[in-house]
Amino acid sequence: MDNAHDMIATAAPFDTAKLDRLMDDAGLDILIATSRHNVQYLLGGYRFFFFDVMEAIGTSRYLPVFVYQKGHPENSAYIGNRMEKFEHDLGRISAPIVKAGAWGTLDAIGLAIDHVKKLGGAAKRIGIEAGFLPADARDHLHAGLGDVEFREAHFTLERLRAIKSPAELDLIREASERVVDAMMATFKACAPGMTKNDVVARLRREEQERNLVFEYCLIAAGRSHNRAPSNQLLEEGDVISIDSGGNYRGYIGDLSRMGILGESDSELRELLREVEDVQQVARRAIRPGALGGDIIAAGEAAVKTSSHRAVLDFTAHGIGLVSHEAPRLTATGPVPYAPYDADRPLECGMVISIETALLHPARGYIKLEDTLIVSESGWEAPGDHGREWNSSRLTA
Amino acid sequence: MDNAHDMIATAAPFDTAKLDRLMDDAGLDILIATSRHNVQYLLGGYRFFFFDVMEAIGTSRYLPVFVYQKGHPENSAYIGNRMEKFEHDLGRISAPIVKAGAWGTLDAIGLAIDHVKKLGGAAKRIGIEAGFLPADARDHLHAGLGDVEFREAHFTLERLRAIKSPAELDLIREASERVVDAMMATFKACAPGMTKNDVVARLRREEQERNLVFEYCLIAAGRSHNRAPSNQLLEEGDVISIDSGGNYRGYIGDLSRMGILGESDSELRELLREVEDVQQVARRAIRPGALGGDIIAAGEAAVKTSSHRAVLDFTAHGIGLVSHEAPRLTATGPVPYAPYDADRPLECGMVISIETALLHPARGYIKLEDTLIVSESGWEAPGDHGREWNSSRLTA
Repeated sequence: MDNAHDMIATAAPFDTAKLDRLMDDAGLDILIATSRHNVQYLLGGYRFFFFDVMEAIGTSRYLPVFVYQKGHPENSAYIGNRMEKFEHDLGRISAPIVKAGAWGTLDAIGLAIDHVKKLGGAAKRIGIEAGFLPADARDHLHAGLGDVEFREAHFTLERLRAIKSPAELDLIREASERVVDAMMATFKACAPGMTKNDVVARLRREEQERNLVFEYCLIAAGRSHNRAPSNQLLEEGDVISIDSGGNYRGYIGDLSRMGILGESDSELRELLREVEDVQQVARRAIRPGALGGDIIAAGEAAVKTSSHRAVLDFTAHGIGLVSHEAPRLTATGPVPYAPYDADRPLECGMVISIETALLHPARGYIKLEDTLIVSESGWEAPGDHGREWNSSRLTA
Repeated sequence: MDNAHDMIATAAPFDTAKLDRLMDDAGLDILIATSRHNVQYLLGGYRFFFFDVMEAIGTSRYLPVFVYQKGHPENSAYIGNRMEKFEHDLGRISAPIVKAGAWGTLDAIGLAIDHVKKLGGAAKRIGIEAGFLPADARDHLHAGLGDVEFREAHFTLERLRAIKSPAELDLIREASERVVDAMMATFKACAPGMTKNDVVARLRREEQERNLVFEYCLIAAGRSHNRAPSNQLLEEGDVISIDSGGNYRGYIGDLSRMGILGESDSELRELLREVEDVQQVARRAIRPGALGGDIIAAGEAAVKTSSHRAVLDFTAHGIGLVSHEAPRLTATGPVPYAPYDADRPLECGMVISIETALLHPARGYIKLEDTLIVSESGWEAPGDHGREWNSSRLTA
């Protein structure tokens, strides 16, 4: 089975016509994807379980490679680790050509070179993911293919993924609902004397019990704005901000909810309402055909009218297989990037995360983050519960 | 705090004199580490929680960078994500200089360039990890530093990590014991009608409940040698091979144990004894001063005398932060690499994984894998229980 070329007659699990158009726009003849998220997408959800968490092995690392020739989906090849022959034997790898023959970066890209050399037609302009292609593999590719031009394929692949399929939206709904359910269960379990680490350990367990892969939890408690898990003790009256990402089959649920050890007071309710107002104004701008920038403009206008505008942080971004992806709405959020989509219309099936934080000097870090799916009627908000103060018990 | 240079007077958490010697041997003036495992090592165990699982963010990816100048540990710098200021404020990052100012590959490496330019002395020969440095970051580094020579630093960093400290050995003991404990609990829960996926889900939970990060499980059942989790149903009498990696604070426990749905018979006991014999012969070659190749020679000699030699797979490799690392004992194992250590003496604190599999055409996949710590008295074997047939119940 090693290095075997097994032809399987299956339709590609992604929109090959759209990819061809995007490659035309970008002037690409061949695409060589090497990021986990794009390879997963191009293989219709498949990821090799062995390297789900780790990447280093031997003297190198795992490097999955997907090769696509414009206009010829039948020539697509997937190059994986030698142990992926187990997966291939089970029929799980949808690429027409599968080479489960690599251990490290150089042998993986060597198999890609062999494949590209066999392709007819133009193969001069090759799209790569330079941030996800190790330097040694890129050098090897360059040496092996000779007179070709490498171009960045990030934008092409991101556009391909920007509108989610119904099956992808189901995964995003599940991820969002389950993350919020896990948060609700965690807030119920919080009590004075626990540490922030204890809370995160509980949230991790609650997410894992819901078959999510726990990715991270940013947590602030009391008056502090420090969001790293730590041994900070929770005290009666503390506010707790939980901002967690958990993925369900690769798709990320990333939401924020607020808890309190005891009962909220009128000032806290007013502060959370300010945050909520910004969130609601921003989501009301969402509908097919509205411009991406409309969401940002609406949210920023709401911030400006708030008496707490000096300590309000608002942003919005696409989300899916990557926690900040297309549509790209702002250059001013926590992750700076070109706001590609500020002037483009929103489309059904796009998924947007909206987040507003109020960094109050005396009352603490108060934040909501929500997931919005652009739909015919405007939007749909999976996991849209628990958005008020969630009270925890005061005794263990 | 953004881009702040905060000086902290702390001793480096690794052996700087050893690293200086290794850099001399390799002709390196500067080292720029970018793999998660080496950066974690150079920071004394610190990993940024937010990117423990995912790496992509925005239009790029997380890239932690550690810069070390030979002979000047006081000039070491760590470059992290902007959110790592939370960790830095908590005093968790031991590098003398911390720049928590990046989001992607290019701004991270840009901060590294700034730092290298400020260093006095020779800075012409720069060690990089070409398999763990993205192509765009390497190009940026090249453009930013001008007339320098890049050399591969993999070997230098691997040698630095080859002998584990007492604290590291404690983590490896914990990882190994907990992985085997999780397997024993899982075998107890196996029953006819469960699938291999069910078994892996149970093992995952058992590892997570023991505060391990579940990395993977290779599982074969019945007569099949296919080791991918699947919906294959377990039946009465099936043998079950579980080979799982779970990490404890980054250090991997990677062991294999055998279960059976019911009771073993004399043939199965004989087959497992053959595997066990190879394992025991190989481990008896371990002691400080023996050559790495002695382990392989001993194991291969034992295989040769077996009547099942045609279907026996034997190998051994170092293990620690990476599942196959120094000492490098063989070029013939499942992960091929130069057998650097075949002719070098074993030293106290090295950690070796020994694995023997018998691929029986009628009775299934029968394997043991053990972890051996080289010690004054020869070796120590954490997690050395459950090495016989572990019987599961026959009714749910």
